Amino acid sequence: MSEKTIGEKSLELHEKWRGKIKISSDVEVSDREALSLAYTPGVATPCLEIEKDLDRSWELTRRWNTVAVITDGSAVLGLGDIGPEAGMPVMEGKCLLFNKFGNIDAVPLCVRTKDVDEFVKTVSLLLGSFGGVNLEDISAPRCFEIERKLKEISDIPIFHDDQHGTAIIATAALKNALKLAGKDISEVKIVINGAGAAGTAIGRLFMAFGAKNLIFADRNGAISRDLPESFLTSEHARLAEESNPSCEKGTLAEVIRGADVFLGVSRPGLLTPEMIKTMADKPIIFAMANPTPEIMPDKAIEAGAFIVGTGRSDFPNQINNLLAFPGVFRGALDCRASDINEQMKIAAAEALASVIPESELSREYILPDVFDKRVVEKISEAVILAARESGVARK
Amino acid sequence: MSEKTIGEKSLELHEKWRGKIKISSDVEVSDREALSLAYTPGVATPCLEIEKDLDRSWELTRRWNTVAVITDGSAVLGLGDIGPEAGMPVMEGKCLLFNKFGNIDAVPLCVRTKDVDEFVKTVSLLLGSFGGVNLEDISAPRCFEIERKLKEISDIPIFHDDQHGTAIIATAALKNALKLAGKDISEVKIVINGAGAAGTAIGRLFMAFGAKNLIFADRNGAISRDLPESFLTSEHARLAEESNPSCEKGTLAEVIRGADVFLGVSRPGLLTPEMIKTMADKPIIFAMANPTPEIMPDKAIEAGAFIVGTGRSDFPNQINNLLAFPGVFRGALDCRASDINEQMKIAAAEALASVIPESELSREYILPDVFDKRVVEKISEAVILAARESGVARK
Repeated sequence: MSEKTIGEKSLELHEKWRGKIKISSDVEVSDREALSLAYTPGVATPCLEIEKDLDRSWELTRRWNTVAVITDGSAVLGLGDIGPEAGMPVMEGKCLLFNKFGNIDAVPLCVRTKDVDEFVKTVSLLLGSFGGVNLEDISAPRCFEIERKLKEISDIPIFHDDQHGTAIIATAALKNALKLAGKDISEVKIVINGAGAAGTAIGRLFMAFGAKNLIFADRNGAISRDLPESFLTSEHARLAEESNPSCEKGTLAEVIRGADVFLGVSRPGLLTPEMIKTMADKPIIFAMANPTPEIMPDKAIEAGAFIVGTGRSDFPNQINNLLAFPGVFRGALDCRASDINEQMKIAAAEALASVIPESELSREYILPDVFDKRVVEKISEAVILAARESGVARK
Repeated sequence: MSEKTIGEKSLELHEKWRGKIKISSDVEVSDREALSLAYTPGVATPCLEIEKDLDRSWELTRRWNTVAVITDGSAVLGLGDIGPEAGMPVMEGKCLLFNKFGNIDAVPLCVRTKDVDEFVKTVSLLLGSFGGVNLEDISAPRCFEIERKLKEISDIPIFHDDQHGTAIIATAALKNALKLAGKDISEVKIVINGAGAAGTAIGRLFMAFGAKNLIFADRNGAISRDLPESFLTSEHARLAEESNPSCEKGTLAEVIRGADVFLGVSRPGLLTPEMIKTMADKPIIFAMANPTPEIMPDKAIEAGAFIVGTGRSDFPNQINNLLAFPGVFRGALDCRASDINEQMKIAAAEALASVIPESELSREYILPDVFDKRVVEKISEAVILAARESGVARK
């Protein structure tokens, strides 16, 4: 089935579905007594219970299982800024996946503003309605500021899946790939090409996981703290401080020499076979540009890659966001976490990596299948433990 | 079953339900192909369709059937300002009723602000996510300003049910009661006691329906345009301009003399048998204070009332909000209305009154039962016609 056919078929289905989620109820209100219990006058009593103790809102309303999926439509898929309403089919799709994979009630919301503070204010005023917020498809660098500001004031988890979900899965993939290559994360050289929302979060989680020699690169080459100030955005200046300890400079082709790991969240075709040939022994390639990766897997293998992962379902080792967010939020909701912090993300990555028993790991099987039922279970258990240990669980 | 028992039973049920609504999906995503059609990469095509033509959001997402039920928790039931989270059991209950009676997907949202402009901004930025907004349990006079400001900028209906839903039902009740009494609305004297959100909207719809001699009263007595300015809030000054043509003044007991209709949205026990005895022939009493009316129906009848309606389900002629909002929104959504305007409210009231055939009308049966299936159907048909005639239907 060609790309075009998928799109056309999807459009036809969307016309038939007229929305991919629905809101309904199992509560019966077919007689007067039922009405008086589910609604007035009986409902006054649970209302007053929550007024006395706000925590009761997790027990007497759907809040305990509800996540808002919120976008401004500024970076939808690879389509860019298509506007809030046009982002809704993706938000509904995400809600559908939250439901089917995490058994979570997810509300799709699109916000008509590109102003960071307006967006933050809007979401912050709605926090009492939900148990968590999944930010989705918001452009960089706005997404960083929005997430930072919201996390500062929120009493429920704020999670930008394009950043942290991707980072959790890439970290799990790296862990298993390094195990097969017989390398230690603290000793490998890693180049991340593309220093936007996903690349930044992935690199930071790699470093939280123990990576020491990690270099971010973008279209201007390696990001280094000794570059002239005018070369770096404030986000990149911050990244430069945290990474590239030997201040390597140059193009991707230059800094990739001797690297053990290449991770791309950039553009199709950016990684050449020649570059792979200059990498260290057993090079690991995560070419995550969508839908066309930085290098096609067969070409990468031909050039000597040891392990190749992409975002695509038609090749092995798919780095698919669906592997993380359902379990991460399931865990966060179940322990009523006030945050999804670094410890919880690390725990999620470890758990995801551990789904595949060591004996089954192979160069073509470093990540479990998205339909593997163990994934959500393992991740949510690990997230709950980490939330409790790091003091953000309320239950 | 005593009041207390209903509350206790309701609390127990809320603890069992843990939320009265749920979000789910009928779309299957159990294999890779299904995923690629409901989500990436296929979903890009419907997204781009909406980017090209925003109207497509009514066809390719759930917007066509989705209403947000939004409160700030400032006037929940008769409980007053209990806060946004504490209002949620009522919002969920409302969403449940939207679903069961109107087959509508309703999203409960509580907003953490009491500031009119913050509330308006928050709701306005979310409008792209819904097909309509039902404002709920917002205190007066803030509710007037919020509704007015939102209606000015919104491209979808904004409907404060506590005002307009109640008004539609009271108007239908009045129409049928006057028919039985053999009186013409343009000739009767009407006193509305309680000039808050509901009373104001009811009076205005009565006047739009043809009432000429209508007097609003509050605890300070009749509202009249020749009262000193300091006696009137700006909302009441506006009301005074529209009503009380002979500038009657005095207490309720004074202005009710000779009235044909008393409608109370005030406090228990405010209407005495003595007052009813001073009213015109065949007095019509709508005593809508909840849960204890301005006068109990049996006492009112004893004092000579011709017809009595209350908010209670244990007496005849229940003026229950459930009679209006499901049909009104069903109609507004089905014709993709950009507003719910006066014409549509009048049409809804006419339709509701007409559900009972003239031959079946009686002093104890002026409004249909809330479980009468004809109600939603008749109202929604009438609302669609009125929307089309008044130019706010987009379909």
